[in-house]
Order: sequence, then C-alpha cells, then structure tokens
Amino acid sequence: MSSYECLLPISGEWKTDVTNWLSEDVPSFDFGGYVVGTEHKTATLLIKSDGVLSGVPFATEVYKQCDLAVEWHFQEGTYIDVSKSTNGKIAVATVSGKAKDILLAERTSLNILSRASGVATTSRKIIELARQSGYTGIIAGTRKTTPGLRRLEKYSMLVGGCDTHRYDLSSMVMLKDNHIWSRGSITNAVNDARSVCGFAMKIEVECQSESEADEAISAGADIIMLDNFKHEELKVCAKSLKQKWLNKKHFMLECSGGLTPGNIDSFLCNDIDIYSTSSIHQGVSVVDFSLKLDH
Amino acid sequence: MSSYECLLPISGEWKTDVTNWLSEDVPSFDFGGYVVGTEHKTATLLIKSDGVLSGVPFATEVYKQCDLAVEWHFQEGTYIDVSKSTNGKIAVATVSGKAKDILLAERTSLNILSRASGVATTSRKIIELARQSGYTGIIAGTRKTTPGLRRLEKYSMLVGGCDTHRYDLSSMVMLKDNHIWSRGSITNAVNDARSVCGFAMKIEVECQSESEADEAISAGADIIMLDNFKHEELKVCAKSLKQKWLNKKHFMLECSGGLTPGNIDSFLCNDIDIYSTSSIHQGVSVVDFSLKLDH
Amino acid sequence: MSSYECLLPISGEWKTDVTNWLSEDVPSFDFGGYVVGTEHKTATLLIKSDGVLSGVPFATEVYKQCDLAVEWHFQEGTYIDVSKSTNGKIAVATVSGKAKDILLAERTSLNILSRASGVATTSRKIIELARQSGYTGIIAGTRKTTPGLRRLEKYSMLVGGCDTHRYDLSSMVMLKDNHIWSRGSITNAVNDARSVCGFAMKIEVECQSESEADEAISAGADIIMLDNFKHEELKVCAKSLKQKWLNKKHFMLECSGGLTPGNIDSFLCNDIDIYSTSSIHQGVSVVDFSLKLDH
Amino acid sequence: MSSYECLLPISGEWKTDVTNWLSEDVPSFDFGGYVVGTEHKTATLLIKSDGVLSGVPFATEVYKQCDLAVEWHFQEGTYIDVSKSTNGKIAVATVSGKAKDILLAERTSLNILSRASGVATTSRKIIELARQSGYTGIIAGTRKTTPGLRRLEKYSMLVGGCDTHRYDLSSMVMLKDNHIWSRGSITNAVNDARSVCGFAMKIEVECQSESEADEAISAGADIIMLDNFKHEELKVCAKSLKQKWLNKKHFMLECSGGLTPGNIDSFLCNDIDIYSTSSIHQGVSVVDFSLKLDH
Amino acid sequence: MSSYECLLPISGEWKTDVTNWLSEDVPSFDFGGYVVGTEHKTATLLIKSDGVLSGVPFATEVYKQCDLAVEWHFQEGTYIDVSKSTNGKIAVATVSGKAKDILLAERTSLNILSRASGVATTSRKIIELARQSGYTGIIAGTRKTTPGLRRLEKYSMLVGGCDTHRYDLSSMVMLKDNHIWSRGSITNAVNDARSVCGFAMKIEVECQSESEADEAISAGADIIMLDNFKHEELKVCAKSLKQKWLNKKHFMLECSGGLTPGNIDSFLCNDIDIYSTSSIHQGVSVVDFSLKLDH
Amino acid sequence: MSSYECLLPISGEWKTDVTNWLSEDVPSFDFGGYVVGTEHKTATLLIKSDGVLSGVPFATEVYKQCDLAVEWHFQEGTYIDVSKSTNGKIAVATVSGKAKDILLAERTSLNILSRASGVATTSRKIIELARQSGYTGIIAGTRKTTPGLRRLEKYSMLVGGCDTHRYDLSSMVMLKDNHIWSRGSITNAVNDARSVCGFAMKIEVECQSESEADEAISAGADIIMLDNFKHEELKVCAKSLKQKWLNKKHFMLECSGGLTPGNIDSFLCNDIDIYSTSSIHQGVSVVDFSLKLDH
Repeated sequence: MSSYECLLPISGEWKTDVTNWLSEDVPSFDFGGYVVGTEHKTATLLIKSDGVLSGVPFATEVYKQCDLAVEWHFQEGTYIDVSKSTNGKIAVATVSGKAKDILLAERTSLNILSRASGVATTSRKIIELARQSGYTGIIAGTRKTTPGLRRLEKYSMLVGGCDTHRYDLSSMVMLKDNHIWSRGSITNAVNDARSVCGFAMKIEVECQSESEADEAISAGADIIMLDNFKHEELKVCAKSLKQKWLNKKHFMLECSGGLTPGNIDSFLCNDIDIYSTSSIHQGVSVVDFSLKLDH
Repeated sequence: MSSYECLLPISGEWKTDVTNWLSEDVPSFDFGGYVVGTEHKTATLLIKSDGVLSGVPFATEVYKQCDLAVEWHFQEGTYIDVSKSTNGKIAVATVSGKAKDILLAERTSLNILSRASGVATTSRKIIELARQSGYTGIIAGTRKTTPGLRRLEKYSMLVGGCDTHRYDLSSMVMLKDNHIWSRGSITNAVNDARSVCGFAMKIEVECQSESEADEAISAGADIIMLDNFKHEELKVCAKSLKQKWLNKKHFMLECSGGLTPGNIDSFLCNDIDIYSTSSIHQGVSVVDFSLKLDH
Repeated sequence: MSSYECLLPISGEWKTDVTNWLSEDVPSFDFGGYVVGTEHKTATLLIKSDGVLSGVPFATEVYKQCDLAVEWHFQEGTYIDVSKSTNGKIAVATVSGKAKDILLAERTSLNILSRASGVATTSRKIIELARQSGYTGIIAGTRKTTPGLRRLEKYSMLVGGCDTHRYDLSSMVMLKDNHIWSRGSITNAVNDARSVCGFAMKIEVECQSESEADEAISAGADIIMLDNFKHEELKVCAKSLKQKWLNKKHFMLECSGGLTPGNIDSFLCNDIDIYSTSSIHQGVSVVDFSLKLDH
Repeated sequence: MSSYECLLPISGEWKTDVTNWLSEDVPSFDFGGYVVGTEHKTATLLIKSDGVLSGVPFATEVYKQCDLAVEWHFQEGTYIDVSKSTNGKIAVATVSGKAKDILLAERTSLNILSRASGVATTSRKIIELARQSGYTGIIAGTRKTTPGLRRLEKYSMLVGGCDTHRYDLSSMVMLKDNHIWSRGSITNAVNDARSVCGFAMKIEVECQSESEADEAISAGADIIMLDNFKHEELKVCAKSLKQKWLNKKHFMLECSGGLTPGNIDSFLCNDIDIYSTSSIHQGVSVVDFSLKLDH
Repeated sequence: MSSYECLLPISGEWKTDVTNWLSEDVPSFDFGGYVVGTEHKTATLLIKSDGVLSGVPFATEVYKQCDLAVEWHFQEGTYIDVSKSTNGKIAVATVSGKAKDILLAERTSLNILSRASGVATTSRKIIELARQSGYTGIIAGTRKTTPGLRRLEKYSMLVGGCDTHRYDLSSMVMLKDNHIWSRGSITNAVNDARSVCGFAMKIEVECQSESEADEAISAGADIIMLDNFKHEELKVCAKSLKQKWLNKKHFMLECSGGLTPGNIDSFLCNDIDIYSTSSIHQGVSVVDFSLKLDH
Repeated sequence: MSSYECLLPISGEWKTDVTNWLSEDVPSFDFGGYVVGTEHKTATLLIKSDGVLSGVPFATEVYKQCDLAVEWHFQEGTYIDVSKSTNGKIAVATVSGKAKDILLAERTSLNILSRASGVATTSRKIIELARQSGYTGIIAGTRKTTPGLRRLEKYSMLVGGCDTHRYDLSSMVMLKDNHIWSRGSITNAVNDARSVCGFAMKIEVECQSESEADEAISAGADIIMLDNFKHEELKVCAKSLKQKWLNKKHFMLECSGGLTPGNIDSFLCNDIDIYSTSSIHQGVSVVDFSLKLDH
C-alpha cells in the first residue's frame, strides 16, 4: 500500500462511489458475463502511453468489489515510460478471478486509471517545469474538477506533486469580489467570515490591487490572491507586500488566472507562495490503459 | 425546453447526481454563503471560448435545486463563436435568486457545462469533418466515459451530432476475443448471448478477419466490428462483406481502434456504417464558462 | 453456481435490493432473535408445491448477508415434482449458522423463492404448451412487472424458458399510438427515435393494420407488433408481410394482447416471431416453500 | 384525500420507493419521451376488470413526481363493476401534463394499481364470505408479502377490509416452535421476549395443543395461535380455552394454516378472534388498468 | 456476544448508521492517517468515569468497518467502578490493526460508547432507586430521543434495565388530547385507531380524569396514561380503576409527566404498572472513555 | 431568515438528515395520523425552560418537509427567559397545516430544538463567564459530538457564541502523541502532514512541554495545544512562547483538557488564544419545548 492510500479512510464514501461507478455499467443484466462464465482467469493490466501512475487505491477497490485479486507491479506515483518497452506496452498489474468478474471490472477500472493518471502526469510536468525555472513554492489545482470526481482528481494532483488547494467551500474561506461587494469592504467581509469559520480555517481574499491586498492583510487574511496582475506588476507588488508587512503580519501570496504549462514560466517568482491553475486537471489528456485476459 | 431534455426522465437518478455534485462542494458549512447573505441578485452566465453549448438541463437542475430562476439565451446544441463578441464573452443565461444560492450553484454548474460542451464541441467537429469527406454514416462514442458522468457525456455526444453507441453492458451485447475464447467459437458465443439477451437486444461481434466476420454474420450477429484493419484492407473487406451477404443477412459494419479527428479521414468509406472513437469525449478540452453577479 | 447467476453482476444494485428487503422486516429490534440466540443450527429449505426452482442467487444473497452458509440440492431451473415425495415436501437446500440469523433470513428468502419460482413455473408451462403446438419462436413477458421486482421477475422468465422482452424504456424503443399521433406519422416517429437511440437500439412499432406495418417496415423498424388482430387476420397478415418484404427489409413480427396459457394456442403460427404476454409473470400463483430448523 | 391515505406519512420512505420504481424503468435515456415531446395532454385512467380500487396515494405520488395533475373519479376502496359499462371500461381518473411525463408515469402507476387492487379485491371477497357465514371477527394477512412491497400490500389488506396482522419482526413478537425449543419451554420464551419487547408490544405464541395454549396463557401471551388444528378440534379447543380462562387472563385466539377463500367457511367460529391467511395477498389475480392519452 | 446484541439484525440499517457516522468525520482526506501510516498497533479502550457499559455492538461495528480486531474485557451492561482502579482508568477493550485505522475509529467509537453508557447508567440508577422504594413495575423511556440515535438510546435503556416504551409511531398507538378532540370522544378515537392498527397493536389513551379513564377502558384501550395527576390523586385513582374493572377489562396504567430520579419516589405505587420519563436518556451525563495506542 | 441559516447550503445533506429523522419515527404506518385526519389546524410551539433558541433552520426544514407553514416569533440565538411569562411558557412559533402533518412533525422538531438549544445555551453561558473574567479570546467545542448530529451541534456552538474548532479530520490537521511517535519527531510529523494537507489547511500540534512547543512552532505548526498544563505553568509557558517567538513565527496557543464552566475561570489568560472544551455540547441539559394544537 502506497502512503497516498492512507489519505483515503478505510470506511468512506469513496468506496460507495466505486460501487456506483460499477452499477452505472450494468443497470439490469450482464449478458457478456453469462457468455464468459465463471472460469478462473488471470489478466494483465497494461499501460500504453507514458505517464505517472495514479488511482491505484480506487482501481484496487474496483477489483476488490468484483472479488478479484490484484498485484501491482509499480507504485502509485511512478512515471512509466512505455517507449522503453518493446511493444509500447508495460504490464502494470496482474488481476485474477472469475472471467465474468474480470470483464465487469475492466472498463470501470480503466476509466479511473486513465483519468487519474492524466491528472498526475500533467501535474508532474508543470511542477518539474517550475522547479527547472528555480521556483521553490507551491503549484496548486482548483475547484474546477469533474462533478463527482473531485476526490480522485485532488488525490491525483498530490500524486503528481502539486497542492490540492482548498477542497471545497467548507475547508477554506475564499472571499472574492462578490463577497466583498456584499459586505461593503474587505475588512467587513473578513470579519464576518472569521466570526463563523473560526480559528481553524484559513481565509483567502482575492485582491485587484496592492491597496486591496494591504487592507486584506490588515484585516487578518491568511492568503492574498493577486488576481489578473500582469507579469511585472505581479512581481513588484509581491515583493512590496512581503517587505512592507515583514514581522507584522503573517500571510501567503497566491497568483491565479489563466496559468498553463505553456505560460507559467513568465509568471514565476519566489515572492509568490502559490500559483494555482486548473490546467493540471481540467481537459487534460488521459493515459492509455488496457486489461487483457491471459490465454 | 430543448427536445434533447426530453431524453431525461422528469423523475430520475440524474437529479440525484446533481444533488450529490452540489453536496460534494459543501460537506459541512458554507462560510462564504454567510458572508454574502440572502439579498436577491441576478448573475450572468458567460461563455468565454468557442463551442457547442451542452448540458443545459443538468445546469438548469443545479439552479432549480438551489432555488434559482434561470433564463437561457441560447438553445442546447448551438455553436457559439465568442470571437464575434467585443470582449471575448457572450451571455448565455441569466440566473437570479439569493446571493448565497447563486454562489453555491456557481462552481457546480460551470463544471458541468464546461465538460458537457467540451464533448459536444469535439463531437460536432468530427462529424463535420466526416461529412466534408462525403461520409454519410454514423460516428459514435464509446464506454470510455468518466466514472459517474456517463449520462452527461453520452448526452453531449448526441447534442454534438454523434451516436452514443451502447450505453452499458445491459443495452447491447458486445462479444470480444475474451468471450469467443471462452465459448470456443463465434457461433457458440452468439448463440449463448442470444439465449439470454433475447430478441430485443442487438449483438455485436469483434472480428479480426473477413472469415470471422462471415461466421459472425451467419450466426446472427447484428453488428460486425472490424478491429484494427489497415485502411485499404478495411475498405476491401467491408465492400466484400456487404456484397456477399446482400439479401441474405441483415447486419451493420463498425470500424474501431485509434480513430481521432486527425486520422479518421483516411479510414472513412460508406460501406462502414459506424466509426466509433473515444476521442470525442475522453481527454477533450473544456469550454470556458463563468458566472458573475451583476452589480 | 448456475450459469443464470452470471447475469447478475457481482457488485450491483440487486444486492442492495436484498439488503432493503431484509431491512423491511426489522425496522428497529428483532425480539425473536433475542429469544432464540446465537446457537449454531442447521435448517432445511423445503419445497411444498410443484414448480420450477428460481431465485437461487437472490436467496443465496439473503443467506450471505445474514452470515449463513447454504448448500443447494437442486439447480436453478429444475422442475421439482413434490408428488414424488412421501410427505409432499422435498428438501431444496440446507442452511446453517446462528439460530437468530436463520430466523431473520427465513421470511425474506421464502418470499423471494415463492414468487420467482411462480414466474418460472408459469413461463415453463406456456413455452411447453407452445412447443407441443409446433411453435418454434419466442414467447416473451412484458414490462407489467411488480414495482421494484423487475430484475427478479425478468430473470425468472429466462429461467422458465421465455424471453424477457425489453427490460425498460432505455433498452428498446417501442412506438405506440401515442408516439405516432405526436409525430404525425409512423415514419416521422421512427426517424425521430433513431436520431437519439442510435444504431445500438432496436425500434418496435405497434401497428393496427397491414398498411401501418408496411410503413413501419419501410421506415426501418426492427420489430412490428401486430396489435389486437383476430386469429385468422393475424396469420394472413403475418404471412403477407413476410413474403412481401423478403430480401428487402429485415424485421421481426410480434403478436400481443390478451394472450394467456388458455388461449395462446389459437394464435400461434410460425410467421410470428414473438408472442408477448404478461400472463406468465403477473398475478401468477406462487410456489410454496418453508424453512425449518433441524432439531 | 381518502382517510386511508392518512396512514402514509407526508415525508416517508414510501415516497422514495415510488422514486425507485420510476427509476427502475429508465436507467439511462427515455427515447420514447423524446419522440412524444412536451405538448400538454390529458389522459384517462381506465379500469378494465372488476375490483376494489386500491393504491390511490401511491399512484398519486407517481403522478406528482412526474409533474402531472390527477383527478380521481372514485374513492379508495370503492368496488367498481365494469360489467355496468358499455365497453368493459370505466374511467377511474384523469391525468394531465406533458405527453412525455404521462407516458413515463404510465407503466409504473398501472403496475402499482393492478397489484394493490388485486389484494384489496381478494381481501374484500374473503371478508364478505366470512360475514355471510356469520363470523364477526378478524381476517388478517401475513408477512408473506412481496419483497419491497409490504407497505402497499398491507395497506391494500386494510382497504379491502382485512387486518394487516403484525407488520414486521419489530412490531409484535411471534414465538414459534423454533423459539420455544431454544428456550426449553413456552414460559421461558415468553418471559425472555417480554424482558426486551416491553409492555408496548404484544406477544403471540404458536401452540400445537390445548395444554400448550394453557401454558402460553398463563405465561402472559397476548395471542394464542392454534396451529394446524382440525375443524372440530379447533372449535372445541377454542371454546374450552375461552371458558376456562374467563375473567382470569386476557388473550385472543388465532387460527392459521392453509386457509383460502375456498375452505375458510368450514373453519369459522366466533370463539376464534382472528383467522390469518396469505391467500388474500400472495399469488392473487391483478385488476386490469390502462392509461390512454385523449386525442 | 452479549444477548442484547441479538436484538440487532445481522443485516440492518444500524450498520449503515455506523458507516455514516464514520463518514461524518472524513468528508475528503484523512491527513492524520497519512502521517501515522499502516503499522500494526494495539490500543487500549479505557473507561474513565463510573458507569454501565453500553453500546458494545455499535462500537464493535465501528471497529469491524475499520478492519480492526477488538476484544472486550467486560460484558454489555456491567457496572464499572473506576474508583477501584489505581489511576482512575480501567481497560475495557483491546483494539488492534493499522495505526491509521485505529485513529479513524477512535472518535466515532468513543462518541457512541460515552452516550450509550450515559443512558444505561442513568436508567440503571432510576430503576435501582425504584426497587429500593419497593416498586415492582416498569420504568420506561420516551420518544424524546436524539434524532437519528433512537436505536442506540432505546437499546441502552434496555441495557440499563428500563423499558423502551413504544419505539415509534408505527409500533403502538398513543391517543392524546389532539386525537380525541379530532374525533369528538375517546370512544370514537379508540375505534378509529383499532380499525387500522388491528389486533396486533396496543392502544394507549392519555386521560386527564378517572371518568376519561373509564371511557378509555370501556372502549378497549390497552394502556391508560394518567397525565399530570398529583401524587395522592394518582394513587387513589389508580387503585379505584384497578378495583372497579377487575375481571371486566384488561388494561395497564401508566404515569407520566415531569418524573426525574429526584422526584420519582413520591409518585411510586404498585397500582401503576409503568412510569415513563425522558430523564433517563435526554440531557444525561456521558460516561468518559478514551482510546490510547499502546507504545 | 437569520444569518446563521446562510451557513447551511440550500441543497445539502442536512436536509436528507431531516428526512431520515422523520422516517425514524414512522417505519410503516402512522395510525395516529389516520385518527386525527386532514383538518387544517394551527399549533403553537412553546418554550418551557430558559435558554438560547437554536436549531431554527433544522426545525423549519422538518415543517417544510411535512408541508406545514411556520412563523417564528424569535430569532435564532435569542435568549428566552420563561420566568417573564405568566405560566412558564412562551410562544416561540406558530405552525399550521393538516392535523396529521402537525402531529407527525411534532416530536422530531421538538427533539431537534431541545438539543440544539441546550448546546447554544451552555455555550452562551461559558462565553459570558469568560468575558466577565476579562478573557477576550476564543472558547471552542470539540469533535466529541453526537454521532450523526455534528452539524446541528457545531452550528449551535456558533449560535451560542463559541467557536466550532475543527469540524472533522479533513478540515484541520491535529497531530497528537500517536502521530508524533509514528514519525519520530514533531518536525517530521509536521512536514509529512504539510506535504499532503497543503497550504490551505492549518496544522495543530499537541505539546506536553515548552520545548515541544518550540519544536512545533519552528516546524511551522499553526496552532500549539498546551495539553494538561497546570494553571500557573500554563500561563508562564504561554507568555514565554509568545514573547520568544514574537515577530519570528506566527502561531496560536490553545489550552485543552477537562475544562468546564465550573473550572475554566482559573485557567483563563489572554496569552492563550483558544480554550477548547466538550462541556459545552456533550451531556448538556436540554431546553424544554412543546407543540400544542390550538383549539
């Protein structure tokens, strides 16, 4: 068991998700299952395009719910380069059990792994790009995740080496323009939020200017998002804020808006603690897997 | 209401999916909701990149469950070209209700629309490419859909002009190599399948050669998938099968395996009834939407 | 494990149904369970009236969820004639585990088996009657199934030797008078249906006359239901359609409406591919079972 | 609203059952709904065979969940004699709404009404037979109900004029041979049961002889079931028990085992307070209903 | 397994409750689980304040769902006096499994045991007080239980030696002032109730005076609640009713309203069969437990 | 609508909790509902003991799901002193609808309000005590909440003026002795936690000494819990830490362990930012409410 799997509680909703994903594929009868029957078989799970393996505990749960044994040949988070194989395929796991159960598990497990590994692979790429540029901080995803699949996608960001950012509306407070307009000022909005979120939550404020950032920091915001700043502006503002508030207030700086692996380099500077982008999980390419019965 | 919406039953699991997607975003408290409060607001749903609008009934259900009114300015399936706007954004709908409820609905509805429209847009592109090449048949997706999101993705293939192919293991029988090995012959496998799936289901058989196709057709298969044939081979085999069995047996021919918008052209011929590809729904780019409170 | 059991996915909603059926019997406390306690016992499942055994995987799942072992002495689908026993009872299975768990499983498992075997028995009878009359085609059930119990009843039709017909609204399209009125013509209705159901689904059209059947066949319907034709009319029309369209269009003919084991004989002819009737599953007699602790 | 409907809580699991019954019929798409569309229609619910109308609140809930209005022309529990109509059909209700929604609700609502009315009709028949024989006591159903459908069937027993007997294992304690063997004596079993079921529950004991009945009455059983007594024996034993314990212990007598409308007459006597039989709800004939769009 | 555990069905909703309680604590990721990892550990469950141990099967289910082994050192219902230990703590159970799984189970299992044991302890105290006063009848709880926790609290009343009273609205009929006003008289209300609840249910009537009690007894009520009678009045009325109806009608007398361990003594008399009070389960002190990894 | 209600999402699991709480009370039939029927009635919700009103949105949801209108006469969070009334009761709300629906909602809504208001009342008391002692910081609850009722209890802490502390294992990381032993040092444990919880989460470390606190602060812990320090020790250590790390590290100090309204005064000092205690929500007295039909 990889250490990432420890993030998933042994009794949790994610296992019900797996059950539902399997049910989605067989509302009534499994006619193919009748044809192949219950003979004991082994099958090989193959990766067919380069990528970072992710989603192992989720696929393992599919196999477990289908009464199959699985032995993984690579650890979660391993980058697998299929060009090193002779036929463009590398065996990632061996699955065994009744023929009908293997075929039932096939599509669902592949659909999970291909998407999870797609997110981990893109996450790995951007963090490696950033490190090559000398950036030592955090690159994080967003809440722009696939409905119903947030757990798998946030998990895969971690596997890929990125930060999950806030998981949901209950786990960090983000105050944007709408919230601030509603309360009249950044200070009011931060105070209102703190009165209910309490000491255990962080509060982030989206700021359009350095003066807004100053107000947010004074008000006790934990993270300041500099929104839509141009490259140079961003760096100047970040440095100014860090110096101005040194030893006075504790805060982090985040940069967001339109970042991609292609353009992030020009935005990077170490005064910014976090760069956040949905480009590491939304609309990313999948990694190709298949499952073949041995015969 | 667009006619596509009629495909979704008024009382159905898809509405529970929407409820679950909303719950995924607020496991405990909505601190931001407390900050913005219950003032009545209107908000504008904007599309910010070109694409075919898809997912309207799903987003409508999000708004309904959040007690919001929504008025759509475009119909499901409309191609919207944002380059025609002055600022790269076109208003797609107007949403109104309590501020807190609008912000709650925001992320989930956008996550739905961006993915659904991504699938519809890519589907539209490939079918238009095929029509330009003179192909008059069917282009279909696959079962390589996102776990839990099959209904939305199959729906969006239809909105984009493609065929959904079989929905799940219960709605058409597909006999692949594994099934055939288990039963010893294509004929046995087809007979076994028919004995349980009955007259109401179609049976498709994956064939590696013309002689396998002949056996499958004789056995009563409804659809013959020619798997991994090379371009010319495919066309020759398809023509041969159609001529040989004319007025003897009724069947359709499907071509599958590695098709993409980039390579499909070289495979197209009108003796093939169906080309199936997961490239129209798996790993496709999303369409960019946002929701902004009017102020 | 009988091959029919392979139709039921190893992880599927039918297991949740079983859980719910057990819960229906104990909303709060099991006082009787307290009285009998946890002593290990064996019990004998007896069949007490003649019939075709059906529902074995469902009853097995009841026992499994109640932590009981079960050994079946007959295979699913066996016709059991209790008159051959000395006391009107034949042991069908042996169940063992804690006394309280056996008594908990008792009523639910018997309620399942009695109904499932009732459907299988009536299905077996009608198909045998038809075969004796020389009919070689299909006899199918309908969607007039017990709410929540469709899986068990359709399954039992198969066990009894009949066809399940379409499982639900998503697995074959049936166009009736209402659909045709809405679209103005059979042709329009078939075209509309095909545009969304795609190539993977069959379309059936209910026809009141031979000319309607001709239109439906032309439009590409896969199955023609001749509705409420009188005996002779039916046979004449069926023969005419089969000859007229030979080598032109592929279709099947179905006869429906008021068929029962008592009257089906007069309708049978081999130009009709399918006779459908709810008399094999709706309002049928149950088969009598009981479960007795050995002592 | 009939008074029977008041038995069903306004927020309760029975409404979820209705939702699940509807979902059972459309796992993915409603192709027929696409064909008929959203035009506003009215439809007539017709009864086509004689019977006692039952299941109205359940069918009403189907219509409500499908966004349809319904007006009932008869009250729950009315015996409707279709021979009094000119064409063998009587309009029972008018349903109105979108065409697609009416067709979606059709099958589920008919499947409910046909079964519920079947139970109510058979229940009505047996109670009327008993009253004609001069019996003034109770006729009750059993727990041999259809899995998942107990609420509807118990409800229909009431509508038909019979008693529901105990609803489940939590709502009355029934001590049978198995329970008594486990505890060594009737007295021990009754005491054990009372220690957990408390004063609010009744305890019934199945007795094979008058001496067992005496022990059970002494031990404080509320109801004594005389199991498998022959006709005369039964009447003699019942009279003897009632006289012997007059003004000493309070108890009721129940007779059970193999009773049917055809044989109950010979068992009836007013010293027996309750006759219980599953013949009023298990394997009973359905009442025939249909729903037709007006046009 | 204690005999109380037999009250809980092996397959039942109470196990789903446990699953939900665990899920309540980890909506997304278990970061602490990642830190401690999967090393095999044992842990000791300690009781730290005096009380009656209750909730063992519920806590056992928590451990089981978390893949942990548990060995209990005391039986359900044992009064444990921590003053007899040297450090104010006594080991109640040993739990073993993966470190992350133990920490996951910790809080939920402790929250269950502390509340269940609180109810059992208070129940035990009041019944012992009553016995010391010479009262031989029943002390029962009420339906004023914690939403969602009724099963655990009613169970703990039993473990503590009290009666659960009616479990819910479906398991005994209680007619209060509101019901009687609606029907015009006690007699009408009792008759109406009996017509639907049948012979298997008991009916209780809340009475404000002896004449109301007389009417309720005549009408066939099984239990008469004397509501808000003063001490002496209560005893006089109870004796009068018991004498007046001796050998005429069977009924029990209940006293309710404001009873607490502090004041119950002055109300007790053996003509009252049942004293009911929510003071044994509502707002009671918890018993203190903790779970510590052995190291 | 009070602003607290905005914390609860308009579509969320808390509404399903309410549905389940109602279902808990009526597994099958509502016999009392049959007796009282559907006459339109109004009822008065009365508070009968002093306290802070809490739980209004949850009770409102009960009434809504029971199709009842409710008008509240006090706002969430109001302290209501019943001694100011003439008869020890004050009308808190007016509820209206069908008689049967009011009686169905009665018990569940009262059970909610009595517990929620109990928590809010105790929370209000302790924070007022602390303010009177000159403490200006935070008093927070814990995760020792009733299984399944955490949302209601955490909500009521806020209504009472306290802080909710972390909601669950996913919303702040708490590193205790067990976590630290597993990783060898506080520094390792903090680093491990941060690598997965990311920048958006706070990390708290339980420390037994000032030197442990120093290590935790160096490692980047956001909150330091001083565990089981004696009164003076605590104050000395807190002051020392605050001075030592001034302008070097940002952190908060928490004190926990055995605090109650009775002893908290001796622990309070303003160098401690947070005092946490389960005494404000666990085992607290309920507030007494009743609901009476007007007549």
